[in-house]
Amino acid sequence: MKYGLIGRNGRMGNEIYNLFSEKGHQLVFSYDKSGEFFEEKPEILIDFSLPEAFNKVIEYVDKFKVPLVIGTTGLDENQIKQLHEISQNIPVVQSYNFSIGIQVLLRLTKLADSLLKDVDIEILETHHRFKKDKPSGTAKMLKDVLNKDVNISSIRVGNVPGDHTVYFGTLGEVITISHRALSRRTFAEGVLKSAEFAIKSIAGFYTFNDVFNLTIN
Amino acid sequence: MKYGLIGRNGRMGNEIYNLFSEKGHQLVFSYDKSGEFFEEKPEILIDFSLPEAFNKVIEYVDKFKVPLVIGTTGLDENQIKQLHEISQNIPVVQSYNFSIGIQVLLRLTKLADSLLKDVDIEILETHHRFKKDKPSGTAKMLKDVLNKDVNISSIRVGNVPGDHTVYFGTLGEVITISHRALSRRTFAEGVLKSAEFAIKSIAGFYTFNDVFNLTIN
Amino acid sequence: MKYGLIGRNGRMGNEIYNLFSEKGHQLVFSYDKSGEFFEEKPEILIDFSLPEAFNKVIEYVDKFKVPLVIGTTGLDENQIKQLHEISQNIPVVQSYNFSIGIQVLLRLTKLADSLLKDVDIEILETHHRFKKDKPSGTAKMLKDVLNKDVNISSIRVGNVPGDHTVYFGTLGEVITISHRALSRRTFAEGVLKSAEFAIKSIAGFYTFNDVFNLTIN
Amino acid sequence: MKYGLIGRNGRMGNEIYNLFSEKGHQLVFSYDKSGEFFEEKPEILIDFSLPEAFNKVIEYVDKFKVPLVIGTTGLDENQIKQLHEISQNIPVVQSYNFSIGIQVLLRLTKLADSLLKDVDIEILETHHRFKKDKPSGTAKMLKDVLNKDVNISSIRVGNVPGDHTVYFGTLGEVITISHRALSRRTFAEGVLKSAEFAIKSIAGFYTFNDVFNLTIN
Repeated sequence: MKYGLIGRNGRMGNEIYNLFSEKGHQLVFSYDKSGEFFEEKPEILIDFSLPEAFNKVIEYVDKFKVPLVIGTTGLDENQIKQLHEISQNIPVVQSYNFSIGIQVLLRLTKLADSLLKDVDIEILETHHRFKKDKPSGTAKMLKDVLNKDVNISSIRVGNVPGDHTVYFGTLGEVITISHRALSRRTFAEGVLKSAEFAIKSIAGFYTFNDVFNLTIN
Repeated sequence: MKYGLIGRNGRMGNEIYNLFSEKGHQLVFSYDKSGEFFEEKPEILIDFSLPEAFNKVIEYVDKFKVPLVIGTTGLDENQIKQLHEISQNIPVVQSYNFSIGIQVLLRLTKLADSLLKDVDIEILETHHRFKKDKPSGTAKMLKDVLNKDVNISSIRVGNVPGDHTVYFGTLGEVITISHRALSRRTFAEGVLKSAEFAIKSIAGFYTFNDVFNLTIN
Repeated sequence: MKYGLIGRNGRMGNEIYNLFSEKGHQLVFSYDKSGEFFEEKPEILIDFSLPEAFNKVIEYVDKFKVPLVIGTTGLDENQIKQLHEISQNIPVVQSYNFSIGIQVLLRLTKLADSLLKDVDIEILETHHRFKKDKPSGTAKMLKDVLNKDVNISSIRVGNVPGDHTVYFGTLGEVITISHRALSRRTFAEGVLKSAEFAIKSIAGFYTFNDVFNLTIN
Repeated sequence: MKYGLIGRNGRMGNEIYNLFSEKGHQLVFSYDKSGEFFEEKPEILIDFSLPEAFNKVIEYVDKFKVPLVIGTTGLDENQIKQLHEISQNIPVVQSYNFSIGIQVLLRLTKLADSLLKDVDIEILETHHRFKKDKPSGTAKMLKDVLNKDVNISSIRVGNVPGDHTVYFGTLGEVITISHRALSRRTFAEGVLKSAEFAIKSIAGFYTFNDVFNLTIN
């Protein structure tokens, strides 16, 4: 596909550019602090920038009238509302987490919980020393799908990108389901799936959960 | 429930007796090398003995006309055939593995496999030094549900009762699903579920997979 | 060796009896709630009973005048003092933890700590749901040998006998050292090593650390 | 320190440049396919390039007469011989593996092996799908320090940079020692240690094992 990328030079921008190039997709437009690059009208717009650039994103959506995949974090309520408005005319995929594996982990956790009785459940998450928040957002998502008062333990060592483990223990056995992120590449893969999804979809507001649900069928 | 137990003094017999007592069930009949104990007609017969005692099992089934849960290993074809015959009149649950966790592991493995694309899958099993066969039967069951040519690694150390791990690795993340047996108690729990299932079922031949399917709904 | 066992019918008493029999050692004396069994004067006395039986232990030590290995927990200060007194005449090995693997874990932890710089260290311990205290005594021992303010996470699931892991994370790598108890048998092995040590030692008060130090040379 | 870097634009060259900058060291000379950068005579030369550039490395060593840290792989016998020759006049540190954690893993493995008796030992290594060789070189190093016939299992999934685990199992417990590489940064850290070591050393031929031995004292 021919795609446009807002936030091209950021960490995620780079990951997306590398993966999309590897898969044969062509960057025909980008926008960043350093300015605009325009070769051709893109088939889809991807935004991984900052909330400050949001007006610019809306401007480009208006101009190109193509689907939008947006992973920029820290959007305020009004900005989310604007996304819902433009989704009446184009497909918008918005999410704070584009990891396929985390979606799988959530589903496995739900299934294990539904199958096991008289079971103790605990969550363990391990991240790098620079992560300030405890527990991680993903650990909270796991707790939410379990819908129970589950204890979460947090380990902070070195430079671990992010591990999550859910323990299910009965008196005779222990089942653990673990997810380990290796790099940001996995998020770029989720963005690619979202872009492919958006291009084929009718106008509407979607999350990565919708993308995942459809791509697995 | 009031139950009868053939093979009362074996390792599994003991585990079953302990768990059933703890849960308030009452042993009213037993048979073992040391002889017969009879207090009352049982509501269900459980057999964890040896193939040599099979005729005695059939005899007691004829006498009491109650459901049978049988976990005796090493039955020959003819004995299995006899079980199918008596299952026309009573519910029979026959299995070589009564672990609930292994059933859960199989289902989680199937779900993960169906959700993940471009993924490498490997199986690792760890058992005690006395285990002669490589790979374990359970590892083969995992490979069967995956229905793929999956590599199995086997570790033999000390006295580990049995660990199984399935790895799913993509370029960005790794998901692992693990099962660890702590003791034979887990098998006794599966027997209890099977007994409860059998008492409520119509005549027929069932496996532990059927028990598990129904008890989770 | 010909040994005497006080607390023969307890959980640890049983484990000790089974291991010692397997290794060809002979029970020639025992004492328990049910009474005394005497066949011959033992070469060594082992006590895994209760503080209430302590006077009886001292009585038998006076009578047989043989070395003592004592693992009874909950002794009070005065009882420990009495052990020190009788250790002027016979070898006494006293400990609350006879696990060889835990001694190894402590030494590995110390070595890793001395070798790694700019490292984050965390401890994780997992035990069965019945364990009331958090963190485990062994986790505290690990923290003590590290002699640092190390975070300890505690997981309580099912019937896990006891796992301990120490994490060492730098910006490029993670080293983990883990210990997993499989059963009480490991403690019986430590008792056997202690008995062999005591028989060959001169009078004195020893701990399992001393036993371990000498048996590894 | 003021350092020179041959192979500046390679993967390892980049990692080294980033870490050294972060720690306040100054690149004053570099050489790469794109040409030479010279600001000042360096205090040390680091080479992570290709065997084809070896003559250029020797040329710069002759010119600057400063210590050399060389991690270039694939050197032939004659090139290694030349390194030994120049090490009569300057300190040379040569190694194919600059990971501190692997050195620690080797020492922990040796210690555990010396402390445990009647133990089964196995090695497990996990790497990305692109790794062709089985088992990994590091797994072989582990087997070498154990100096025993130890089974090695190899798992190849996704994009795992490299995990190594050594299992020690007795009849009562299991000890595992694991190393997980997170990125190439760890190798850059080993190079920095080697550079600091080389600057303070007298002329001679050293390996990373020597660096590690001295820096830990």
